[in-house]
Order: sequence, then structure tokens, then C-alpha cells
Amino acid sequence: MSTNGAQSSPGYSMGPHTLRVPMELFALNRRRLCEALRPRVPDGAVVLLQGGDEVPLYCTDVSYNEFKQEAFFQWLCGVQEVGCFVALRVSDGRCVVFVPRLPAEYAVWMGKLRTLEEFKSKYAVEETAFVDEIPAVLQSLGATELLVLRGVNSDSGLTCKAASFDGIDKFKVDYSTLHPIISECRVIKTPLELEVIRYVVRVSSEAHVRVMKSVVPGMMEYQAEAVFRHYVYQHGGCRHVSYTCICCSGNNGAVLHYGHGGAPNDCGVMDGDMCLFDMGANYYGYASDITCSFPVNGKFTADQRLIYNAVLKANLAVMNAAKPGVSWVDMHRLANRVMLGEMAAGGLLKGDVDDMLKAGLGAVFQPHGLGHFMGLDVHDVGGYLDKDPPRPTEPGVSKLRTARVLQPGMVLTIEPGCYFVDHLLDAALADPVKSKFLVADQIARFRNFGGVRIEDDVLITETGCEDLTKVPRSVEEIEKTMKEKEGGVEIPSHITKVKHGLPSNWHH
Amino acid sequence: MSTNGAQSSPGYSMGPHTLRVPMELFALNRRRLCEALRPRVPDGAVVLLQGGDEVPLYCTDVSYNEFKQEAFFQWLCGVQEVGCFVALRVSDGRCVVFVPRLPAEYAVWMGKLRTLEEFKSKYAVEETAFVDEIPAVLQSLGATELLVLRGVNSDSGLTCKAASFDGIDKFKVDYSTLHPIISECRVIKTPLELEVIRYVVRVSSEAHVRVMKSVVPGMMEYQAEAVFRHYVYQHGGCRHVSYTCICCSGNNGAVLHYGHGGAPNDCGVMDGDMCLFDMGANYYGYASDITCSFPVNGKFTADQRLIYNAVLKANLAVMNAAKPGVSWVDMHRLANRVMLGEMAAGGLLKGDVDDMLKAGLGAVFQPHGLGHFMGLDVHDVGGYLDKDPPRPTEPGVSKLRTARVLQPGMVLTIEPGCYFVDHLLDAALADPVKSKFLVADQIARFRNFGGVRIEDDVLITETGCEDLTKVPRSVEEIEKTMKEKEGGVEIPSHITKVKHGLPSNWHH
Repeated sequence: MSTNGAQSSPGYSMGPHTLRVPMELFALNRRRLCEALRPRVPDGAVVLLQGGDEVPLYCTDVSYNEFKQEAFFQWLCGVQEVGCFVALRVSDGRCVVFVPRLPAEYAVWMGKLRTLEEFKSKYAVEETAFVDEIPAVLQSLGATELLVLRGVNSDSGLTCKAASFDGIDKFKVDYSTLHPIISECRVIKTPLELEVIRYVVRVSSEAHVRVMKSVVPGMMEYQAEAVFRHYVYQHGGCRHVSYTCICCSGNNGAVLHYGHGGAPNDCGVMDGDMCLFDMGANYYGYASDITCSFPVNGKFTADQRLIYNAVLKANLAVMNAAKPGVSWVDMHRLANRVMLGEMAAGGLLKGDVDDMLKAGLGAVFQPHGLGHFMGLDVHDVGGYLDKDPPRPTEPGVSKLRTARVLQPGMVLTIEPGCYFVDHLLDAALADPVKSKFLVADQIARFRNFGGVRIEDDVLITETGCEDLTKVPRSVEEIEKTMKEKEGGVEIPSHITKVKHGLPSNWHH
Repeated sequence: MSTNGAQSSPGYSMGPHTLRVPMELFALNRRRLCEALRPRVPDGAVVLLQGGDEVPLYCTDVSYNEFKQEAFFQWLCGVQEVGCFVALRVSDGRCVVFVPRLPAEYAVWMGKLRTLEEFKSKYAVEETAFVDEIPAVLQSLGATELLVLRGVNSDSGLTCKAASFDGIDKFKVDYSTLHPIISECRVIKTPLELEVIRYVVRVSSEAHVRVMKSVVPGMMEYQAEAVFRHYVYQHGGCRHVSYTCICCSGNNGAVLHYGHGGAPNDCGVMDGDMCLFDMGANYYGYASDITCSFPVNGKFTADQRLIYNAVLKANLAVMNAAKPGVSWVDMHRLANRVMLGEMAAGGLLKGDVDDMLKAGLGAVFQPHGLGHFMGLDVHDVGGYLDKDPPRPTEPGVSKLRTARVLQPGMVLTIEPGCYFVDHLLDAALADPVKSKFLVADQIARFRNFGGVRIEDDVLITETGCEDLTKVPRSVEEIEKTMKEKEGGVEIPSHITKVKHGLPSNWHH
């Protein structure tokens, strides 16, 4: 982290060409949390969170590359060093950051050790101390009760690690109050948080456009990942992506979590196929999450256009309908309805769209949810708090990461998709309830099509929904963009050499 | 993983422009291990290793990006999927890979599920089965005893995770025999492994040259990391780096593990300073580890040349002396001796070099070891096995990751360095034993110099030492290389704009 000399207040930035994030962002988060907690906790309540540590790669002395801070901790104070704690006195918002006490010789490995005073000014908190001083400082804060984080992440099913320190048994600890309240605070983004999200979504949008302009038949899928990651780091200062890049071409587009260890974006990108690229940069912890789908050769076929426009209409329908007071479950159904209607108009389906929905046809072509909260986690917290509607049970809808009613300040992805998954098509064709809607001989044509997903990051405003994503979306815009090959993009010579000439089994 | 159509035998590759690694590499590793084990274990002994799993990022549903396989497991079978096991019957080398039994609907998320037959052919093993079949298959192999991995990594101090499965209590398990023997096998590289190491070192060398040609005053340090990572991925198919990239400029060059979370390569690269860039790509698990040091503006000053040449002479002296039968400890001392001698000749030190060594002056300027084994781990295993010389106790020398006598087939880094660390200089100046060798007013000039490290990856041959690294090393070569700006390298416009114009505190 550097402090920009042009600015007097403390902030984070990755250089003059990147966004400067003021530490006030976290001060505001802390004020909001204290306000939300005050009516529910005693006067002497103090929030205590434990930050992340580096995770060793198996039993070796290297860690999983590049430390990422834990999201609740990041939200509260933005501290980037490993092994820290933070305490927040609810009554007056006094904040203390605790850093590890390092031996002097660490300077050789880690650099000049910052003093407590330097940490205090770097993060603009009221006080700093060493981790071994936690009990004493909590005493001095008059802590009668510690509010510690314990709760289940509704996406992973994992329970977050509660803060723990030597001497915690001397304190009264409340493990239940904090989690739902801080999660709810995280659901509604502040203007300062939105500025960071706008920035990282913009940088990711630019990188997607760069990728679009650099795709040539014969390249490897992961080379698109390389272009994306390079762009967001070089131009945006984004060291991390928010999730493993999903770079599918052709039939791989029907694999929702493509890019994993067993399928690491390692196929050749073939003329005539579609790309489905789902990638999002991360800046100071804040995520973006964008998917672009387009033809490898820059020109949609009639079939590609049919499926693409069906998904795009679903995306736009939600974009137009999403606003405060609307249920996200209804938005999912709306997207399904529009997409199935378009597929029927295109001759792939037959019958009444309402009946299709009842028969669960939405989940045959879009087995995932419409979208999710996004913030410091790409699948952000707060989707299913106790006060909120429970997870629906219908196929497809059950995959939604939240069933909540929209409110201003929520940030979500809108990401309808249409996929031709053999496993799901075979099951649907074998099921009389579903098969009567399927035009089997038309659908057969799409067996190796893969899929289309159109994913935007949006903000729910007072009156509607603002799309933060800035990428070409219509067929015409995409075709125009892909004609503009970037002068600055480097196409390795081997790619030109093997153009159109990859062995056919480079494609899985 | 893809199978190149031009080849009939199974192999790993990331595309036609990348290296194809034959599965025979792992078959050979297995044969070597069985030969080494046979004299020590009963006839019915079966090796059982557990592969890696994805590590969730805190309590979220995303994992630390991009799965990396555990190194011992990788060495034995090269399997890239998560959650696998491998069994190896020592008597005849029969190998069984166990994969998780996944529900059919995983195809939607992970792609078409490979059959056991497909895994068998992908990894060229004798048999494949599901993880839940481990006990039955071990029975069928006639296992009377399981050889399971348990041992301490001498770099991290961590104990590796022993394989465990439901029903292991029904077997006799030997936790001690395997670790030293398989570690020793990993120390000596086969010709097939060397081919991969040569490849990844070559790709990393090319990337370092690319970085050198793209450095301009005013850029940010992490932009060099971005160029490196992009090059090795785009051109070499290397998705991972082997450790967090260390991109220092100026005084940061004296921070050995710069690049960590609290100092993420986020300073401006300033005219007149040195760069010290330590980065290495990874291909199919195999590491490279290269450091280049050079002036930001492409032209060495007299002081920069003095320190650089002192380190280079140390590097070359080791390169010339390293051969079978030579102790690595002696090589460390040789490097110290040559470097201190050069510094004395340059007027920074005074007195007898042997006396300096006895006084521990080597560790004042090079607080780290000369180098380490390199293979599937960047700090490869086998440095301090029970049969080998113990860790030395003298300052500096004690940091060596091995004290062994060199043998043909070992791969190591040779990485002497010279750093001006305030903390160490102050301590040495305050210590009469050391201070009498220091020319204080000359050394004062280097207080903000940072450091120089010259790190090569080498193979010990029958007669000497082969440098696998191909980067410009002499002052003249570096200056010549840096004059050749790459046409293909994209310098973001903001860099040209702020050239020479960064606020001074962009530099820590």
C-alpha cells in the first residue's frame, strides 16, 4: 500500500493510474455497524475480529500465492497485513488494530518494520497495539462482552472462524449477535464502497473488451485468461481475480465451473464455436464478476444469434424490472420465462411457456440461479439470513444464492444463461413431463453448442437498476468490436502458425 | 490436460506451442521408488499417497485460485484432479489411481465425468478405481503393509499430511520408511524430469528478458510482475508461478521476501535505482526460480557496477567449482569469500577476507543461503535427511537449505546476493568484531541502495555444473539487452505520462 502524496488523508492505491480508496470507507462501515449493534448489545460490548493468515501450500514453506484478507475483517478496517486483529467498541466506535509483534530480524525478510504509530496512521484508526496486548487493551476499553463472529456461509455451508486469543476465556463472549448484523450491513453498499466496485467493474469490462479483440481461432482458451489477468493488473492494479477464470470455448461452454484443476482452460479455441468467458478482477478486496459470450470468429451464425438473443432478452428484461420491492425469485422466473419464450419462438420448444415453467424447464437450460450479491466476496454474504425468505425448493430456483426482496444499495449480478448439457437434455427427453415441450430434432442440432451466459454487475438504485458493466452486448456491437483488433495486443507467432490448424482433439 | 493427436502415448501439454510431458516420466519415478524401497520392505508392501484438495478461501465457496497438486503425489503419478489417491505395489510396481465417485449431476458443473477407463489411459497407470474402493483394491493387491508418508519438511518445519481413508485401521501402516526414501528419489532428477525443468527455466528466462526490455522509470513494480506472468502463461502455458513474485526496486531490494501482502510490489520504479526481480514460472508442477538485477534506466552507475560485479563473480566462482563430491557448505563459503574480496577491492571493506569470514561478515551482506534444491517444490525436499550432514550453526551458513555433498542429477539454485539492510549494518557497526572490517563512510553511501541478487538454476552433471538459465548476466549484456525495447510490449499510456514524474513517496 502506498500513500499518494497528492492526498493528505490516508488511502490505498496501486499507483497514480489506479483508484485511491480513502480509509474513510472503513470508518463509515464501522459507524454503520455500531449503529446497527447499539440497540441490541450492552454498553460495554466490543466487536473482535481476527484477520487472515497465510495458508501454506501443503507442508511446504511457500504459501498459496499472494495473501488475500478475510472479507469481514477487510470490511471493518482494510488492514492488508497477515496475523492481525481488530477491536471496535460499540458505544463510541473506538477502533483498535492489533498487529503481530515481530522480532527485529524480520526486517531482513519483510522490510522495515512499521511502528504502531505508522500502522495507526496508515489505517486511520484510533489506536494500534500488538496482538499479545489484546487482553489488556480490551480491559482498557472497558469490554464487558466480546462480540465475536460465528455463522454459516449460506453458499459454502462453512462456518467462519471465530476470533481467538490467549486469555479469551476471561471474557464473556457472545457468538451469535454479530454475524447476522454485520452480514446485513455488508449487503447494502455505501457510496464509498460503490466507488471501488464501479472501478473494479470498469477495469474488468475494459479487460473483457481487450480479450474480445484478441481472440483468434487456433489460440488456447487460457491465453484469453492470460490477456485478462495482464490487463487488469497492468492497467488497473488488480493483483487478484475474484475467482478462477472460466474460459470456455465450444462445448466447454456447457460446463459451469470450467477452468478447475481437471479442466484448466486448456482447449484450443476453434473457428465456428462460441466463447463463454467469465472473469472478474479484484481491487482492495472488492470483486467484479462479468461474463461475455461471443463467436470465436467474430460473426454470429443464425443458431448462435438465436441463443444469444434469447439470453440477452432475459438479461434486459431483468435489468428493466429490477428495483426496490421486487423479489429476486420473481426476477429469476422472469428471466426463465423470457428465455424459454424466445427458444419457443426459435422452434426449439413448443407449448405454453407458463406450463414449461411449471414443468421445471427453466432449470434444464439454466441449471444455475439468476445471480447473486457481490461485494468483498464474489458471492457476497447475507443471502439467507434468518429474517429473510428461505431458500426455494423448485429446481433451478433452489440454486439462487438469495431469495430476498431488492433494496437500494444492493449490488448483484444478473447472469441468465442457456446451456446444452447432455446430462440434463437426456434426462429431460426421458421425462414425459418435460419432453413434450422439447422439439427433439431441433435441439439435437445444439448438442455440441456449449452455452451462452450474459452476466452484468448491477446496483439497485432508489428507482431501478444501474448496470455498472460496460461491455458490448448486442450482436451488432460485439461484431463491430471484434473487427477492431487491438494494435497493442500481442498474438504469439505460434498462434498465427497453427491458425485453423490445431489437431481436432485439442478440443475436448 | 489434452492429448496431442500427433503423439500416440499419453502426455500432458498446454497446447502445440508448449512442452509435451510424457506420462512415462511418472512411470520412471515409480520404478525408481520401488527399486529403492524393495530391499527395506516386505513383499506385500504398498505405497499409499493422498493427493491435494481445494482449499476454501476462509469460509467462502471460492477456493484459493487454481488448484495446485501436492508435490509427492504429483511426482508419483501426475494426476491433476482433486481428491485422488494413488497406490503403488512395491514388489512389481503395479499402480492404481483412485478418483472420487462423483454424482452424475456434477457434469453440469465440472464437465463430462471421465470414466475409470479414461483416467487409466490419461495417466497411463495399470488400474483405476474409486476412492471408496480403496480397502477392497488394497486387499486385491495383497497389501500386508501400507507405506504412508509422514515426515517433516526441513524448510517449513511442517509435517506432511499422512494419507487417510475409511478402513485404514484394518491395515498395518508404516509411517516412517517412505518419507526419507521418496525424498531422496526426488533429489536426483531423471532425464525426463530434467526436460521439464529445462523447459520451465527457459520460459522463465525469456520472460525475464521481456521484463528487462519493458522496464521504464515511472512504472510500478507490480507491472513487471504482470509482464512476467503474462509471458509465461501466454507463451509457455504456465498457469502458476512457483512462489509470490518478488519485484523490488531501489531500497526494497534489501527486503528478501518483498512482494508479500504488506508490501505487494506496489512502489514506483525510479530512475537511478536498481531492480531486483525474483520470479519463476511453474509447468506441470515443476518449478523455476530466477533472479535478475539491473538498473532501472538501463545503464549501471559505478556503484551499481561494483556491487553487481561482486555478486556476479561470486555466482561464477560457484558455477565453476560446483561438481560432484563438493560440499554445498563450501560453495556458500566460496561465494561469500569472493564477494567480500570484491567489496574490499572496491573500498567498502578492509582487512583479511579469511578473518572477515570468521567474523561472520558474510551474513551481514548476504543473510540468506547460497541456494537450494529445486524441483516439484521451489525449495525442494531432501535437504536435511537423517543420513545427511546436519544444518550448520554459523550465521548465514545456517540458512542453507541443504549442507549436502553434490551429486550428478541434483538441481539447485546458485543465488549469491549483496544487500544493504539498515538493521544488519547497524548491528555490524556496533559490533567491534565486525566493525573493524567495515569502511563506514563508504558503506554509508549505499544505505538506500537496496540489493543485488543473481540467481541461476543449475544441474549438477557428472563433471561439473550446467547453467539452465539463459538471461543476460554481464553488465555489458544487460545494458545491450535493455537498449532493445520490445515492439510487442505494451507500455500503458499512464506510464509514459508520469515518466520521471511520480510523487517521491511512491517509493517507500
